[in-house]
Amino acid sequence: MKNSQLVPEPSPELIRSATDTRNAAVSIGQSSNDQRRSALIEIAKSLSKNTKEIVNANQEDLERCASQGLSKALTARLRFGEEKLQAAIEGVREVAQLPDPIGLRQMHRELDKELILERRTVPLGVLGVIFESRPDALVQIASLAIRSGNGAILKGGSEASITNKTLIRVLHNGLSNSDLDPRALLLLETRQESLALLRLDRFVDLMIPRGSNDLVRFIQDNTRIPVLGHADGICHLYIDKTADLEKALKIALDSKTQYPAACNAIETLLVHEEIAANFLAKAVPLFDSNGVTLLGDKVSRSLGVSQAASEKDWETEYLDMTLSIKVVNSLETALEHINQYGSRHTESIVCEDKETAEKFMSAVDSAGVYHNCSTRFADGFRYGFGAEVGISTQTLPPRGPVGLEGLVTYRYKLRGDGHIAADFVSGKSDFSHVDLPL
Amino acid sequence: MKNSQLVPEPSPELIRSATDTRNAAVSIGQSSNDQRRSALIEIAKSLSKNTKEIVNANQEDLERCASQGLSKALTARLRFGEEKLQAAIEGVREVAQLPDPIGLRQMHRELDKELILERRTVPLGVLGVIFESRPDALVQIASLAIRSGNGAILKGGSEASITNKTLIRVLHNGLSNSDLDPRALLLLETRQESLALLRLDRFVDLMIPRGSNDLVRFIQDNTRIPVLGHADGICHLYIDKTADLEKALKIALDSKTQYPAACNAIETLLVHEEIAANFLAKAVPLFDSNGVTLLGDKVSRSLGVSQAASEKDWETEYLDMTLSIKVVNSLETALEHINQYGSRHTESIVCEDKETAEKFMSAVDSAGVYHNCSTRFADGFRYGFGAEVGISTQTLPPRGPVGLEGLVTYRYKLRGDGHIAADFVSGKSDFSHVDLPL
Repeated sequence: MKNSQLVPEPSPELIRSATDTRNAAVSIGQSSNDQRRSALIEIAKSLSKNTKEIVNANQEDLERCASQGLSKALTARLRFGEEKLQAAIEGVREVAQLPDPIGLRQMHRELDKELILERRTVPLGVLGVIFESRPDALVQIASLAIRSGNGAILKGGSEASITNKTLIRVLHNGLSNSDLDPRALLLLETRQESLALLRLDRFVDLMIPRGSNDLVRFIQDNTRIPVLGHADGICHLYIDKTADLEKALKIALDSKTQYPAACNAIETLLVHEEIAANFLAKAVPLFDSNGVTLLGDKVSRSLGVSQAASEKDWETEYLDMTLSIKVVNSLETALEHINQYGSRHTESIVCEDKETAEKFMSAVDSAGVYHNCSTRFADGFRYGFGAEVGISTQTLPPRGPVGLEGLVTYRYKLRGDGHIAADFVSGKSDFSHVDLPL
Repeated sequence: MKNSQLVPEPSPELIRSATDTRNAAVSIGQSSNDQRRSALIEIAKSLSKNTKEIVNANQEDLERCASQGLSKALTARLRFGEEKLQAAIEGVREVAQLPDPIGLRQMHRELDKELILERRTVPLGVLGVIFESRPDALVQIASLAIRSGNGAILKGGSEASITNKTLIRVLHNGLSNSDLDPRALLLLETRQESLALLRLDRFVDLMIPRGSNDLVRFIQDNTRIPVLGHADGICHLYIDKTADLEKALKIALDSKTQYPAACNAIETLLVHEEIAANFLAKAVPLFDSNGVTLLGDKVSRSLGVSQAASEKDWETEYLDMTLSIKVVNSLETALEHINQYGSRHTESIVCEDKETAEKFMSAVDSAGVYHNCSTRFADGFRYGFGAEVGISTQTLPPRGPVGLEGLVTYRYKLRGDGHIAADFVSGKSDFSHVDLPL
């Protein structure tokens, strides 16, 4: 349940700023596709024009953090030199070119003569975004918010504070050369404010945490605002007895090693006992030579896996070059394991028998269920969405990799000519319910 | 924030039952349309066959409650005689005839040669339903759950306890004559259990409260499970200066009086000052003669409304024959009022000027925005959904009146032939991203 004591009440200043952001978002929600596209072009121009200022600001952050002994990995994320900035500017221009997610008609129906219902996509309103010290994340999420007609309240990691302050000024400058209200983007600067953000459910429609599993879990546990994202990504690959060995080896290696820190990399390999000896005879040396540490159950250890997996391994997201392996005696046992330990992110089966594949894909209730391909395809860009807001493991839509469509909702519009419900209750009128072209 | 102290930990028995329900739901999720249709027909037969037993059980509940002095309105809801049961059975048969919401392909895309992505609708899993003492609600929600391939954990009001126990036994009997696992429907019998249900976020995917605003608010405040529904329904009708007087009067009367206890009835009428004198000269006697108590701001009182509205009236859902009236000097003032006091349910404008209508429908961020028709059309049956799960005022979809589509989600299925991500990173393969026919 929610640890309310950790989350402070928002200050009057924060409420005032959030109100401004909300009002600006309502106005942007009514802007045209061209206006939002032009605004992104202005943002890109402003970023270009202020390259030096941004890079210098980032240099200041880097120097301060170096003196405080920031780790190498975090420093690499924090660094925002000319090259990365250039890539971010390219990203803004690409988002500008994505198809408009707003105003799409999803339903069009005559309820009665001259009483026409339609359902159209509209922006969500205001996004709350909390991200770690990656300046490119600020630029990316701000441009996705504007593209989809939303406002955004942003809070980045304190290591990037000077860079972020500079970036938001540059973004505001860009927006002020457009038709859109710059107040749609608000940067929070204190930890106190970012905690209080979790209470702004009157102003914020969706929280987007970009960071560690712990960050996501903390936010999920401390706000009433819907949260887009996922805490764990414990993905499984199941090698069925009918698997093609070559495909199995290739897919297993890719799913684990192509980028092990990603949420869609596998943590556990399940292998059918009938193929286990043949598969492991080749897989163990293959993983070894690729630097993967294998932890196995009893049977897989008898087949060449040297270290033992404990119960805790089945529920661990290593995010690293470690893989747990279990030999199962049937598809059903594999399904049970996935049901018990999976995080409903992405699971894949390797098999040549189509019926087994369909059974797996029907029984596994994850956002993504794959057959004969790597779990690493679970990604908005790879699905062809153009941009990825995040990957959601919640049950309700949006689920799986989420593109711009995760930042919109819909509204029903009903247009009549004096129509009243009483006429339909009395029988004077009857609903026709005829679908019209979309 | 969440009042965790009010919500007890689930008992081991409850967790066992919930696990059974979850497993049964996973199995029903893989059943065919025909299997789910036939199951509903078996349920309808079982209800028919056990009419006498059900009516007698309800009689027992009625007698016990009469001796405890249950109010007239609640007794009317609790009563489940032959006629109401017959209507409920008809309802089950109608739900059986609704189009299958499961397995619909929403996306179909080639990512690469022989690497095909599709997105198909799947059941949510398990619904948690808490409803007041209306036996028909149990039958209706159970049949909607089964139709959409979901399990359901149900808790009804204690006044109907004998009726509900009888009904669940009859439903289980029906299901046991079908291919579906009867354990997909679980009835909770104690208040302790229904509170603990709020903690079953590992087992329950969506909470559906059917009852008072206070019940909905309590559930929203005490669970991590997403909640479908709405607390308040404070709907507005705005009579613009360009309104046709006759339509305005007709729509105002219908929106308030056609069924004032409904969430989509209006609570506040906003009238443009240029038309206020003409409109109120006719509207005041019309509402008077229809038994509506009017409460007005200063200007509307100078134009014939006798009682004063206080600040509190603008935020009150009367659910009764009372209406607050405010005269505004512009469309913008009306929009501000709605933005401040509305609950984002349904608002309507009466006007002949199309541009004003479009501006209103674009600026008001409610689930339903109407032009020249009654707010009373905000209803799943009237929209042509066949069944209504509830009306949602949250921002994210599903929003507004929700049909069976609110009980499903989707899953991405990706089928390949040994495809790995590394080939696309190295440039050996390229994504084609070609949309295929749905």
